[in-house]
Amino acid sequence: MSQPLAIVLLSGGLDSTTCLAIAKDEGFTPIALSFRYGQRHTDELACAAGAARAAGAEHLIADIDLAAFGGSALVDSSIEVPKHESVEDLTADSVPVTYVPARNTIFLSFAIAVAETRGAHDVFIGVNAVDYSGYPDCRPEFISAFEEMANLATREGVEGGRLRIRTPLIDLTKAQIIQRGLELGVDYGTTMSCYDPGSDGGACGHCDACLLRARGFADAGVVDPTRYSTPSTFER
Amino acid sequence: MSQPLAIVLLSGGLDSTTCLAIAKDEGFTPIALSFRYGQRHTDELACAAGAARAAGAEHLIADIDLAAFGGSALVDSSIEVPKHESVEDLTADSVPVTYVPARNTIFLSFAIAVAETRGAHDVFIGVNAVDYSGYPDCRPEFISAFEEMANLATREGVEGGRLRIRTPLIDLTKAQIIQRGLELGVDYGTTMSCYDPGSDGGACGHCDACLLRARGFADAGVVDPTRYSTPSTFER
Repeated sequence: MSQPLAIVLLSGGLDSTTCLAIAKDEGFTPIALSFRYGQRHTDELACAAGAARAAGAEHLIADIDLAAFGGSALVDSSIEVPKHESVEDLTADSVPVTYVPARNTIFLSFAIAVAETRGAHDVFIGVNAVDYSGYPDCRPEFISAFEEMANLATREGVEGGRLRIRTPLIDLTKAQIIQRGLELGVDYGTTMSCYDPGSDGGACGHCDACLLRARGFADAGVVDPTRYSTPSTFER
Repeated sequence: MSQPLAIVLLSGGLDSTTCLAIAKDEGFTPIALSFRYGQRHTDELACAAGAARAAGAEHLIADIDLAAFGGSALVDSSIEVPKHESVEDLTADSVPVTYVPARNTIFLSFAIAVAETRGAHDVFIGVNAVDYSGYPDCRPEFISAFEEMANLATREGVEGGRLRIRTPLIDLTKAQIIQRGLELGVDYGTTMSCYDPGSDGGACGHCDACLLRARGFADAGVVDPTRYSTPSTFER
């Protein structure tokens, strides 16, 4: 029984870990791909490794050098990660400072390189357009344009194949993502969403990612197994 | 006098070094961007540094991890670089083994990240569609699709700006590129085109890149200052 390969971008967060479970559920043999890109914390790579292991997936980690370019609170420690009291304080009017320039473009570019090398036709990415649309490279129109470009960029495209960029979470709410993941047996206790975890490795509870995650669990009516550094403003 | 910034992808080869001179000639302050990507030889990075210095350009080198993905004679030492007796032996019927999966996609992705971080609107890449069309990611339709994607991927695109991918060499023959470079004062003695240089750092004279370069200089009617490891089949 030979299942087709799929490359799954895996940060170790809630969304990408769910995406990995979905790729597997759809009948693919997933190859998880993570990046060491100058994140301010590397706890999420440990989460990614754990998630890949739990899914029985091969796990590749590529070193890339985004920090040298700065420009984002996620890689530049001189920029402060914004904190809020509640999810209602989040606005998507402009691109947030946690946006890393061209990050998804770079990640997907590596993914299509791996896909081409390994003979995979499918690349999964856990972008989501519902909860938060502040990142330009999470929008459906970006994904479509990337897929089109990828099919011109690669041997696959030239030789008549078709690379597909798969975004199974794009139209789901955070609560729906969590429900889908729980159906598929994802252990969210091992996932990390926080942009700015404490020195004990616990989530901060106040960055955009923590607030969206907490609301997602509340809406799904399930307990978030996340360990916090400081009490969150959400019941859990 | 404030000149606009441009990011110039610089390998240290003939084409990209000419591209750097053109960007400067067009009135940009170029920022040269090179990659340490597991090339089998790193001589070309030394050439890139020399070319950037000669042009008075800032030079960034990003470490990226393509070798881990293998799949090309340029990064995988278990694949042999093809050698030919003459340029007539080259065929563009299929994608050559020296093609690195998605390489230009990855390089351009980093370039737009730097452009966004530094406030540049222009990215120069020395791709060329005339002499050799075997690489899918050197074709004009790839460049157009990348530009379109880039304007959806970035803050620049979302906020109404426009990123441009500039390919001043795309319709030039190798001889025309050399003539243009000489007009602009490029010293081709410091450029490196060879895919498989000898242990003395000299060019092999028989790989695709050496053969195309030699024919370009012959067609341009100028002497190629390249230092060869072994005698080339071309007069020079």
